[in-house]
Amino acid sequence: MALTPLERLRDLGLELPALVTPLANYVSWKRAGELIFLSGQGPRGADGERIVGKVGHDVTVELACDCARQIGLGLLAAAQAAAGGLERVEVIKVLGMVNATPDFREHPKVINGCSDLFVQVLGDRGLHARSAVGVASLPGGIPVEIEAIMRVA
Amino acid sequence: MALTPLERLRDLGLELPALVTPLANYVSWKRAGELIFLSGQGPRGADGERIVGKVGHDVTVELACDCARQIGLGLLAAAQAAAGGLERVEVIKVLGMVNATPDFREHPKVINGCSDLFVQVLGDRGLHARSAVGVASLPGGIPVEIEAIMRVA
Amino acid sequence: MALTPLERLRDLGLELPALVTPLANYVSWKRAGELIFLSGQGPRGADGERIVGKVGHDVTVELACDCARQIGLGLLAAAQAAAGGLERVEVIKVLGMVNATPDFREHPKVINGCSDLFVQVLGDRGLHARSAVGVASLPGGIPVEIEAIMRVA
Repeated sequence: MALTPLERLRDLGLELPALVTPLANYVSWKRAGELIFLSGQGPRGADGERIVGKVGHDVTVELACDCARQIGLGLLAAAQAAAGGLERVEVIKVLGMVNATPDFREHPKVINGCSDLFVQVLGDRGLHARSAVGVASLPGGIPVEIEAIMRVA
Repeated sequence: MALTPLERLRDLGLELPALVTPLANYVSWKRAGELIFLSGQGPRGADGERIVGKVGHDVTVELACDCARQIGLGLLAAAQAAAGGLERVEVIKVLGMVNATPDFREHPKVINGCSDLFVQVLGDRGLHARSAVGVASLPGGIPVEIEAIMRVA
Repeated sequence: MALTPLERLRDLGLELPALVTPLANYVSWKRAGELIFLSGQGPRGADGERIVGKVGHDVTVELACDCARQIGLGLLAAAQAAAGGLERVEVIKVLGMVNATPDFREHPKVINGCSDLFVQVLGDRGLHARSAVGVASLPGGIPVEIEAIMRVA
C-alpha cells in the first residue's frame, strides 16, 4: 500500500514548516476552483535566519539547491493549508527564480532541489511543468525564490 | 452597505485609465473560463509620457511604488473590460517585476503600490498570492512591469 | 474553408520538432482540466546545437527573434502532444524571458517571433495575453526562454 505524503516526509526525516505570514500586503496562497496559486517563497535557515547572496558569486550551486529544497517544504506547507491536506494535491507548474550572476548557467540544478522533493513526497502527482531562470535581484537579497501552481484532484 | 469598486475608486480620487492597445502582437487580457489572464503592464505618466529608469539607480523606491499603483489601475481597467465590470472580480495572483540593480532588496515595498490599491478598491476580494522579483531589463526601459491573474466570481 | 493548423504550418514551410525530454526533473507540459501549462523552452539550432549568448551584447535582436520563433514551434509541439492535436488549442498566456544586457529595451520585438507564429498557425485562437521581460541569466546560457499557458477549447 502506498505511503501517504506525510509518511514519505517522515521517512525522509523532514517535516513541514509552520506557515509564515507574508510581511507585505499579500497572502501565501489563493484558490481558484481546483487550482491553488502559491506565492513565491524564499529559504529560511534552520534557526529562522535569512540566507542571502548571489548564486555564482557568494552562494554555491549546492547551497542554492538546499535552499530550493527548503522552499519546496514551505510550498508544500502552504498547499496543505490551502487543500486541507496533501493527499489530493498535484503539482502543476513551478517557476524557479535564481538570484544569479549574469553568466550563471546551472539554474536547473538549483531548482531540482525543489522539484526532486515534490516527486519524493507526492510521487507521480509531484511531476510538474517548470521554468528555471536567473533574475537580477530578489527581496532581501535571498538567493532563490520559487512560486508554484498546484491542483486539488 | 458596502461601496462598489467604482465608488471606492472615486473616494480615493482615482479613475480607471483608458485601455491601451498593445503595440506588439498580443492582447491586454485573455479569459479562460472564470480566469482572466492580464498582460504585463508598465507605468504611464499623468500626461501619457513613459517613465524610464532603473530602481536603486535613477528611480527611487517611492517613485517605483507610485508606478506600481498606476499599473494597478491599468490592470483593473483591463479586468473591468474582460469581466464586464469590477463587482465580481477577484484578484488571484500578481507577478511584480522590478527593473532594479543587482543589489536591490526592497521589491515588496515597490509592488505593494499595486497590492495596496487592489485591496483598497476590491476589499477582501483584492487579496492575492504574489511574487515580487528583480529583472535585468524591461521593455522601453520602464522601471516596473506587473501581470496578474484574476477571476470572475 | 479554413486551413488546419498543420496545413498552415506546411504553407509556412515549417514543421513541428520532435518533443525533447527535459534533462532535469520536470515534464514538458501538465494539464489541469482545460488548461495546459507548458514548461519554458529554449531555442535549438537547425542541427540540434544550442544557441548561446546575451541579447544586446553578442546576440542580435534578429537572431533572438528567430530563436523565439523556433521556441514557438517547440511549444506548439508540446501543446499538440498535450491536447492530442492542435485543432482545438487556444493560446492564453505567454511569458517571454530574454537573457539581455541591463540596458536592453526591445523585448517585445524579440518575443514577437513567438507571438507572430502562434497567430500565423492558429489564427484568432493564437492571440494571447503576454509579458516580455529581461532576465539576468538563463540555463546553459541560452538567449531566450518562453513558457505558455494554452487551453483546449
